[in-house]
Amino acid sequence: MPKYDTVAIVGVGLMGASLGLALRDRKLAARVVGIGRTAKTLRTARERGAIDDSTSSLARGVKSAELVVICTPVEQIASQVREVAASAPPGVLITDTGSTKEALVAAIGDELARGAVFVGSHPLAGSEKSGPAHARGDLYDGRLVIITPRSQTPVTASQAIAEFWRAVGAEVKEMSPREHDAVMAATSHVPHAIASVLAAATPAQWLDLVGSGWLDTTRIAAGDAELWRQILLANRDHSLRALAKFGKVLSALRRALKDRDGESLGRILEAGKQIRDAVGS
Amino acid sequence: MPKYDTVAIVGVGLMGASLGLALRDRKLAARVVGIGRTAKTLRTARERGAIDDSTSSLARGVKSAELVVICTPVEQIASQVREVAASAPPGVLITDTGSTKEALVAAIGDELARGAVFVGSHPLAGSEKSGPAHARGDLYDGRLVIITPRSQTPVTASQAIAEFWRAVGAEVKEMSPREHDAVMAATSHVPHAIASVLAAATPAQWLDLVGSGWLDTTRIAAGDAELWRQILLANRDHSLRALAKFGKVLSALRRALKDRDGESLGRILEAGKQIRDAVGS
Repeated sequence: MPKYDTVAIVGVGLMGASLGLALRDRKLAARVVGIGRTAKTLRTARERGAIDDSTSSLARGVKSAELVVICTPVEQIASQVREVAASAPPGVLITDTGSTKEALVAAIGDELARGAVFVGSHPLAGSEKSGPAHARGDLYDGRLVIITPRSQTPVTASQAIAEFWRAVGAEVKEMSPREHDAVMAATSHVPHAIASVLAAATPAQWLDLVGSGWLDTTRIAAGDAELWRQILLANRDHSLRALAKFGKVLSALRRALKDRDGESLGRILEAGKQIRDAVGS
Repeated sequence: MPKYDTVAIVGVGLMGASLGLALRDRKLAARVVGIGRTAKTLRTARERGAIDDSTSSLARGVKSAELVVICTPVEQIASQVREVAASAPPGVLITDTGSTKEALVAAIGDELARGAVFVGSHPLAGSEKSGPAHARGDLYDGRLVIITPRSQTPVTASQAIAEFWRAVGAEVKEMSPREHDAVMAATSHVPHAIASVLAAATPAQWLDLVGSGWLDTTRIAAGDAELWRQILLANRDHSLRALAKFGKVLSALRRALKDRDGESLGRILEAGKQIRDAVGS
């Protein structure tokens, strides 16, 4: 018998459709409903076998869902959580896959309609590719999902969400929304901003001369610009702090180079190497 | 019959030993002499089949060479070029594999002893790995080598060096030393510096939470810190200019984020995406 009766997925892009595939591959849900705005995306998700049914109406799609996962861009999540609470069965459990959490949980507020409970999730999984055509049932397999309950979140709810992610193959780690956003600013959002700035600052007439170093360092700049614009704005304060830290080290490197201070320059390069070597490939 | 009689390679690390393997695999030289300071490196290069003979004496190693390729760190190249000119047969042809050229050709000066001719080369090939144990006979295959003759370099000499690189499988492009260094600052040296700064600015306690974006963006920070210290110092002026350009775009991004100016932020991310998409994976 499947673990869940009806699971609804709001937004069936890469993340949502991959989740649907994982649920159906592992026979975890009796029925997976995909909710989206564009008919073509929903059709592709159905054809890929990621969802059983689809609808463009959020209210209709969540009507009989016991669990709703919102996989849309961060700017849309808060209002969709409230909409789900109003339309789904009482006490529905809601989570998401958004990359930022502090502003989101603040926007959702303390109490949802009809006893619905929201527990934020952020799977550290993804790809430069987007859309349901690139969905993979193993996208979450062995990946880390950070869940971000608040102090007032019922323990049963955060346990249920943790169990859900483990069921699709992920490992789960718990953090406060604030800690999550601080970590992500330094390890994900600012690296993305830096890759974009580096690509944007490269003269176009020299692009046929770039080597593997440039290709690696700028790779994530190819990601969806609108998605990352939203992420950086949603995690503005922590990102500005991480950018300030980056800027301080950058200034030290520029100063060392300007002053032909090989010792200080070597120290910065060596510090970067030690950090990078500590992580591995 | 081999194309070359004796080719001497000064420095049999990854670049030098790979060149020796390519020459011997393709039967391009009757004899390849490896010159190096450490017995262990020379022995590994011999065992890998990268060189026929080895010596720690540069003067002895180049005695009967018609072509000498210097594959040592950039700070050592200029003085070794002069030493080769003094010890090799008159009119010897000398090139290198160093990553910077403007300061190097200036340091070498206009005239070498005994009619020796130097033409700078920079193969856009390499690896995070170093040492002759990682040498590969196909390292230069299909890669670009930039050669940097000066206006007074005899055309026959630059043609001979271009032909040499084509013989080991590379494509050849000619640039002035100055243009080469400007291009490399923007496409290679500054990307390396930025990757190092980003790695160095990442809090160590969060390293188990980095994702594929951080891993890509910081990958080259694992490179040899001393080598890159030398490269940045040797290409100081162009690197400072490219860093200033990067810093300007970075400031614009920070300002946009600070001001919650989503339009400007989106424009920078979109510009980076367009540049990155233009290059491909």
